[in-house]
Parts: sequence; structure tokens; C-alpha cells
Amino acid sequence: MPSELERSMESLITVFHRYASKEGSSNTLSRRELKDLMENELSGFLKSQKDPAAVDRIMRDLDANGDGEVSFEEFVSLVVGLSIACEQCYQMHLKKQHGKM
Amino acid sequence: MPSELERSMESLITVFHRYASKEGSSNTLSRRELKDLMENELSGFLKSQKDPAAVDRIMRDLDANGDGEVSFEEFVSLVVGLSIACEQCYQMHLKKQHGKM
Repeated sequence: MPSELERSMESLITVFHRYASKEGSSNTLSRRELKDLMENELSGFLKSQKDPAAVDRIMRDLDANGDGEVSFEEFVSLVVGLSIACEQCYQMHLKKQHGKM
Repeated sequence: MPSELERSMESLITVFHRYASKEGSSNTLSRRELKDLMENELSGFLKSQKDPAAVDRIMRDLDANGDGEVSFEEFVSLVVGLSIACEQCYQMHLKKQHGKM
């Protein structure tokens, strides 16, 4: 049976391909596929971005090779950035809890 | 309810802290904590590494700032590397399947 960490890695891959396979190349996310993915999978984060052009900005930031598509390698850099930000919040939360004890 | 992608990111954080909290600093993995994590969470990958000093080698590779501890930022680079390798296998598998149809 896969471990919790292995299941997480599998989810990164299957979530990416669930959206990447919708149109055009099945190995990359078009702007529309990235928008779909973010609206469904990262809706909390997307709502926190007040900028209505957030998806376009993120698309530009992720698309390192400038081909107008987001590859899996480019996609994981978004996941990493968000995970690191969340982990910093988690550490702050732990510190606050520890301060209360 | 969190999405599948949000749950994966949460798992990366909780798995890291489950092992990081065992001894010393609760925000970093010592060599022993990294070994524990890899033996329990990435046992398939660890078995595939024929080198008995694999954990030491991985520890050196991950420990970018050379402090003898693996931070969350350093840990996610391992997860990213493995996920990208797995995704490439997944793409090859899809191509083979497509070839058969």
C-alpha cells in the first residue's frame, strides 16, 4: 500500500493530467486548463488574490520557457511555492500554540 | 472541504513535521529523522537505491546550506525530483497505452 507521501506525489501527477488532458497537448496546461485547475483545486488561494488577472500573472510566472503552456515541471514550482508559504504559517501557528502552553 | 491538491500539500507539511518533531529542532529533519521518513514513506525508492549509503548521499544533496539538517524547503526539493521522475514514467506509460489502441 502506498504511504501518505507517495499518495501525495501521485495526486500531484493525476490532478495535473486531469486538467492537462482536456484540450491541446495532454502533457501541458493551456491558460484555460490552468484557470480550470486553479478555480477547482486552489479556489481559496485564487480568491485571496484580489487581482482579477491573477491567472494570467501566474501563467506568465510559471511558464519558464515562454511557450504559452505550463509543463508538469513548471506546475510543481507553483505547488512548492504554496506549500512553503503554508508551512511557514503552520510553524507560526505551532509557535503561538507553544506560547500558550 | 479541501481539494485533492490542497490535501496533497497538507500531507507534505504534516508528514515532514511528523518526523521533524521526533528529536532536536522540530522544524528540521536530522539525519536519523530523514532516514526514518525515507524508510517509512519512500521505502520503494530507498530499496531501488542499491547504495547502502543512499540516505547519507541524499542528506548531503538536500542540505543546501550545509547545516547538517534538512529544512522543509530542502525536503520539498526531494519530493519535486521524485514527482518529476514519476511523471515522466507516467507519460511513457500513457504513450505505450496510446500506441496499443
